[in-house]
Amino acid sequence: MRKILKFKNAPSVLSCACAVGAKEKEGPLGEYFDFADESDSFGKSTFEQAESELQRITLNLALKKGGLSPEMLDAVFAGDLMNQCVGSSYGLAGFGAPFFGLYGACSTAAEGLILGALAVDGGLFDTVACVSSSHNSSAERQFRFPLEYGSQRPPTAQWTATASGAFILTKKPFYGCVRITEALPGRIVDKGISDQSNMGAAMAPAAASTLYEYFSQSDTVPENFDMILTGDLGNEGHAVCKELLCAKGLDLGERFNDCGKLLYDCKTQDTHSGGSGCGCSASVTAGYVMKLFESGKINDVLLVGTGALMSPSSVLQGLGISGIAHLVRLTRETEGM
Amino acid sequence: MRKILKFKNAPSVLSCACAVGAKEKEGPLGEYFDFADESDSFGKSTFEQAESELQRITLNLALKKGGLSPEMLDAVFAGDLMNQCVGSSYGLAGFGAPFFGLYGACSTAAEGLILGALAVDGGLFDTVACVSSSHNSSAERQFRFPLEYGSQRPPTAQWTATASGAFILTKKPFYGCVRITEALPGRIVDKGISDQSNMGAAMAPAAASTLYEYFSQSDTVPENFDMILTGDLGNEGHAVCKELLCAKGLDLGERFNDCGKLLYDCKTQDTHSGGSGCGCSASVTAGYVMKLFESGKINDVLLVGTGALMSPSSVLQGLGISGIAHLVRLTRETEGM
Repeated sequence: MRKILKFKNAPSVLSCACAVGAKEKEGPLGEYFDFADESDSFGKSTFEQAESELQRITLNLALKKGGLSPEMLDAVFAGDLMNQCVGSSYGLAGFGAPFFGLYGACSTAAEGLILGALAVDGGLFDTVACVSSSHNSSAERQFRFPLEYGSQRPPTAQWTATASGAFILTKKPFYGCVRITEALPGRIVDKGISDQSNMGAAMAPAAASTLYEYFSQSDTVPENFDMILTGDLGNEGHAVCKELLCAKGLDLGERFNDCGKLLYDCKTQDTHSGGSGCGCSASVTAGYVMKLFESGKINDVLLVGTGALMSPSSVLQGLGISGIAHLVRLTRETEGM
Repeated sequence: MRKILKFKNAPSVLSCACAVGAKEKEGPLGEYFDFADESDSFGKSTFEQAESELQRITLNLALKKGGLSPEMLDAVFAGDLMNQCVGSSYGLAGFGAPFFGLYGACSTAAEGLILGALAVDGGLFDTVACVSSSHNSSAERQFRFPLEYGSQRPPTAQWTATASGAFILTKKPFYGCVRITEALPGRIVDKGISDQSNMGAAMAPAAASTLYEYFSQSDTVPENFDMILTGDLGNEGHAVCKELLCAKGLDLGERFNDCGKLLYDCKTQDTHSGGSGCGCSASVTAGYVMKLFESGKINDVLLVGTGALMSPSSVLQGLGISGIAHLVRLTRETEGM
């Protein structure tokens, strides 16, 4: 059985930042984002380079908020959706920090937070950054079709967010800080779903399995949490996940939501099943969730980063799409330090 | 400045395994590999699925040698060269272990060993696996041309190995075991090299920088090590790295070699500058190096995993190819436990 990791030193989020594109800025969470470029190009001439620049801007903002210079980073854990994760490697090269490249599809933000927390918790690192991003235009032409084709999208399709989130984790807690107290790393779950326009359904079983295992082992109940957020199942996947959990007798109630559902107004923004991409849960967490923490409105949150593990080639070869779901517990420090 | 990580509990390699294709089996290290499929297909009908199967076989072998069942793994750290790292996600889905996907190009084996060692060293994990692979045919058609085109390769080009290596790390040391005692994680180094047929030259500056920083900080000298191995710079990159280090006054002597140089006989096997790919340093280390350790012929080794951080798209867009080099120190336990 997977075990809940209980971080002995519960690393704190020293600072975080998020940057987004036009559609994300216009969405219901627009006010929570630190930076937006309405052209989606971030001053670059290709979509891929725009995504790298988006990561660079986001990490720079997080460092600035934390009063840190790049040399103070002991490591960066980063990833994105692009082939060979070039969004991160080109975007973060200039920081000069030790670099660990990750690939967890849309679960990358949570994967990075777990690995970053492990590194700090063990005591060998003092300060690390966890960064992830996605860009709608770089993802569409890589995974599906160039945008210029104007392909129709089915209602279950999600909209890859043009967004990035960066978190700086540190050893030292401070009053009011948000700490990574627990984690439950995901395992690969394959239920044979092969419709690449319905990633939500492919990831939902993994999310349900992680949440169910968490509450089976934990001394908490859903009512202890202000929010339980998957990221990113979208409307379709979130409904499937809810059903799977209810069938097992676990009702997470109104606090159960999804970063992909929160990022856009699907009715007016034509985003079909909601947001996705490594930048979706990263920006919703670094923007919306962290600002709710800072304002004292919430104290305890479960973030379940979900990823669909496939490639265009694996889909063409008829393989099923597996899902993975990494759980991270974020708890606000309310004790005097 | 990057700091050498000194693992407090120095995780041990409980067991390891490697599997290769036909060309690797025919090479100078053929006798050291645990398993070889001379068809390179590993019983599968596509090159990509063959690579996944290669990883599955390798991890299974490592588990068997260690007397472990998959449920005993607290986590798997794995990666490969394929888009979206599907070699690992399809290959390792069946093990059911918590899964962290990595992307570090040819440095993935070393990246995995560092993250696996961090996870065990910190005390939250008991037993983890680090797995990586590459397959010549899946890599060639993804990064360059389908093999059927018969494209000519320049002398500086390396040959992507059809190979995989798996290491099981555990907390408990035992007499004669090999421990991960230190690490120096790599940073991204971009010297503006853009020839994708000369990855060795693109990675050499990163390897030189990591080795130079290691010996600047360490209380060791090159003479303390039986082998100092980069993986995989090939003939061209290794010569460049040697020159860069000598120019800085650091002569590593005859003990300085490269996994890509060791894997093939370039003169008779037509592999030009030597081996590369996530499976090259993984299989050379899990096969050749670990068997030398076991036989007591060597006691202390530096492995410097090197990766070229680029994608076919980034090269077409005219971006330089950055390199990264993660150092891992492997030390044989010669004290009575």
